[in-house]
Amino acid sequence: MEERFAELKTRLAEIHDVRRAQEVLFWDQTVMMPPGGGPVRGAQLSTLDKIAHSTFVADETGKLLEELRPYEESLDYDSDEASLIRTTRRDWKKARRVPAELAAEMVRAAAEAHDVWAKAREEDDYATFLPHLERAVELKRRYVDCFEGYDEPYDVLLDDYEPGMKTAEVRAVFDDLKAELVPLIAEVGSTEPEEEFMSGPFPIDAQHEFSLRVIERFGYDPQFFRLDLTVHPFAASSGTQDIRLTTRYKDDDITSVFTAMHECGHGLYEHGVSQSLERTPLCHGVSSALHESQSRLWENLVGRSRPFWNHFYPQLQEAFPQALGDVDQERFYRAINRVRPSHIRVDADEATYNLHIILRFELEQEILAGSVGLKELPEVWNARFEEYFGIPCPDDRLGVLQDVHWSGGGFGYFPTYSLGNIVSVQIWEKVAAEIPDLHDQFERGEFGQLHEWLRTHLYALGRKFTPQETLERVVGGPIDAKPYIGYLREKLGTPAAA
Amino acid sequence: MEERFAELKTRLAEIHDVRRAQEVLFWDQTVMMPPGGGPVRGAQLSTLDKIAHSTFVADETGKLLEELRPYEESLDYDSDEASLIRTTRRDWKKARRVPAELAAEMVRAAAEAHDVWAKAREEDDYATFLPHLERAVELKRRYVDCFEGYDEPYDVLLDDYEPGMKTAEVRAVFDDLKAELVPLIAEVGSTEPEEEFMSGPFPIDAQHEFSLRVIERFGYDPQFFRLDLTVHPFAASSGTQDIRLTTRYKDDDITSVFTAMHECGHGLYEHGVSQSLERTPLCHGVSSALHESQSRLWENLVGRSRPFWNHFYPQLQEAFPQALGDVDQERFYRAINRVRPSHIRVDADEATYNLHIILRFELEQEILAGSVGLKELPEVWNARFEEYFGIPCPDDRLGVLQDVHWSGGGFGYFPTYSLGNIVSVQIWEKVAAEIPDLHDQFERGEFGQLHEWLRTHLYALGRKFTPQETLERVVGGPIDAKPYIGYLREKLGTPAAA
Repeated sequence: MEERFAELKTRLAEIHDVRRAQEVLFWDQTVMMPPGGGPVRGAQLSTLDKIAHSTFVADETGKLLEELRPYEESLDYDSDEASLIRTTRRDWKKARRVPAELAAEMVRAAAEAHDVWAKAREEDDYATFLPHLERAVELKRRYVDCFEGYDEPYDVLLDDYEPGMKTAEVRAVFDDLKAELVPLIAEVGSTEPEEEFMSGPFPIDAQHEFSLRVIERFGYDPQFFRLDLTVHPFAASSGTQDIRLTTRYKDDDITSVFTAMHECGHGLYEHGVSQSLERTPLCHGVSSALHESQSRLWENLVGRSRPFWNHFYPQLQEAFPQALGDVDQERFYRAINRVRPSHIRVDADEATYNLHIILRFELEQEILAGSVGLKELPEVWNARFEEYFGIPCPDDRLGVLQDVHWSGGGFGYFPTYSLGNIVSVQIWEKVAAEIPDLHDQFERGEFGQLHEWLRTHLYALGRKFTPQETLERVVGGPIDAKPYIGYLREKLGTPAAA
Repeated sequence: MEERFAELKTRLAEIHDVRRAQEVLFWDQTVMMPPGGGPVRGAQLSTLDKIAHSTFVADETGKLLEELRPYEESLDYDSDEASLIRTTRRDWKKARRVPAELAAEMVRAAAEAHDVWAKAREEDDYATFLPHLERAVELKRRYVDCFEGYDEPYDVLLDDYEPGMKTAEVRAVFDDLKAELVPLIAEVGSTEPEEEFMSGPFPIDAQHEFSLRVIERFGYDPQFFRLDLTVHPFAASSGTQDIRLTTRYKDDDITSVFTAMHECGHGLYEHGVSQSLERTPLCHGVSSALHESQSRLWENLVGRSRPFWNHFYPQLQEAFPQALGDVDQERFYRAINRVRPSHIRVDADEATYNLHIILRFELEQEILAGSVGLKELPEVWNARFEEYFGIPCPDDRLGVLQDVHWSGGGFGYFPTYSLGNIVSVQIWEKVAAEIPDLHDQFERGEFGQLHEWLRTHLYALGRKFTPQETLERVVGGPIDAKPYIGYLREKLGTPAAA
């Protein structure tokens, strides 16, 4: 049995090596590659994907998993070995359901749609994107048809990002959230223009230096991390000891410092996965929502908090004397935490962000069910947007065309962003209860104990357990919007000086 | 038949994609990777190697090649298709001869020996390296035993870098060269210390800017190239449109500008391979010697020539006024072309460099034959070195331990460096005959016609033909040391002012 298990482990390690090679090649393509390399790089990525996929879904993998059933049952449920067999079996069964032909067509369609979408957005021309969106939705329906035993079709899409999560569960959580958010935003939302000092100047070298100084306190270590520049920030990794973060700087925008903290949160999660899981399919964060909970925790719960700025604001003023020299800390704090309905999701504040997500979550279900037609989508979007945000949507660039996700067939992804917000506060309450002087530590610029708590309780687990099991182990219960609602009410609904 | 050929081409394209992924991952490891990523990266590279190798040597590949014999014979010998089948058949037959076990042991032995060698060199301690060298030689003998039909065992090793080249042929060429070089170096070699201005200061930013300015004239284009920093400069590529050069700068050393030209020569070769060969095993330079002929051509025949500096020297003086402001061009030209026996191969001048190679070529054959024992190697090295160079070798750091090659089992590689020098002048004479005003062009800072000639006549061919066929097509005959000897005599043996 040990021999069979070693065989499975070697097989999975090699597949994982290929997957990680794809990740490094993707990072390289985005961050380093000369533009001319694009077409050949595309072929390389597609070949590696084909190799990893075909080796994984092969009968041999299933045979090994079947033979290892008694071995798995003889082991502790929590052991790395039992977890590897259990999780791999779930992955394998799922991967086997999708015919290679359909998978390939989805990849092709996404590649073809991407540039069309980018051009359509630029030119505010939904009509040229429409046929690609229709194809994407049609392919998603065929994808859903590969599965059975779901409560509603959207469950299948959600499961790709949040394994085991049910649409009904998300709906319940989001309904709670929406019922609180719409009035809260109406109450505290501002319509005034942004404070002038928020547009700088913020010299880019100083932004980079300041960003690094902050995330080095969080746990970024050049022995194991890089930070580079891209148009669209992201985090990738070659293994737990090789984490690649990217960010962007504009000299009229200081929010890059939050981008760095956000990506660092993703990176700390991947870096903290137990090294005993290295080169296995368990060597990743467990789900999109849990991952986002960590980027949001470091960005918002730490990085937009008063204790954090009690420590860092004097340094920020020193780094940007021209923009911030005359701005006191409380005014800066209010500016970075201001609630203000706006059109673009990625620029939204902490509170209204969730309304952007809820809008998309609802529309995705209606699109999949066919109750909203794609031709009418812009009108439906705009009407719903005005209802939730209280402001009209002037065009599709600021509306239905703004996000890349649908062009790539990424239906089911959006909700995980808000689930991440919700989970981040559940985890935060747990940490705060166990480390009562957390805020005092932040005021001293110390984040090591927070990092260590998260590493031990969450990051180290990797994908050993389901997202639900993982959350249960970290916070002692299922997903629950109440702590997050309480947090938003307290932070935004009470006078800033409190 | 077309269908079978398409099958072969897809198979080879996917293998090539994996090989290129290895090359990018190696580049990343050397240039970009955080240090902590090392162990996992090693595993990734080894997995990709295993996948590419096992797919290539599989029976299916041979079966396709066999089935395609009539198709190949129906095609023009020079066609991409016939060349692909012919070259792949040769590669496949060769790869099949080496058992996977032996290949894996050679990789393991090389990995283990590398750090031991680095430490032994640092500490001038040949004894600790000796067992690893013994293992490397033993493995090479077993490797040779996998083959048959060679004239002498060293042919097998040479064939890995210079396919089809015979030891006897190299020996004849090197004997000619040695007979000329030893007296020439005794005659023109200098023993005076280097001119003081050669140690700077050369501020690093200005070196980088100047290096880029030069190689951009050669054909470096940021659309298709990168230039980064490493300890040991090299060139790598992800495809013809994505070329990665590396170099190094020290502020007391201006020779980095030659390093950049050298690596650019390698890069221009890979960049110039016909795009019809992209994603095939023909998409590379044809051999180590032909590759080196191009790095040397751009570095030495262009970069150390008077016409080149007639154009660039004023700019160099402007870039480094402190070191070169008072140094006239002729004095600089003599300093960068001075012949001076020294211990370290990679720091050697254009002429003595070849003696370093001949020494290693002779010793490699004697080691393989067992006529030089590895225990006695340092003494043999030192005696032979003094005989050829006229100066003693004080320790093994400056002697037998200086090069990395043997630790990795790279026997047979060294001769290709000097073969490259020899070939570079054969090609040069051909170009100079066809473009009579080449030097006038250089004086105007124009190198486009040279680049275009080399691209059309050599680079575009890739690996379509054997190195011998390729050379025949470019210069109209086999390898011949006479032009190179004539070049050295004329450049070094006549008064500098001539």
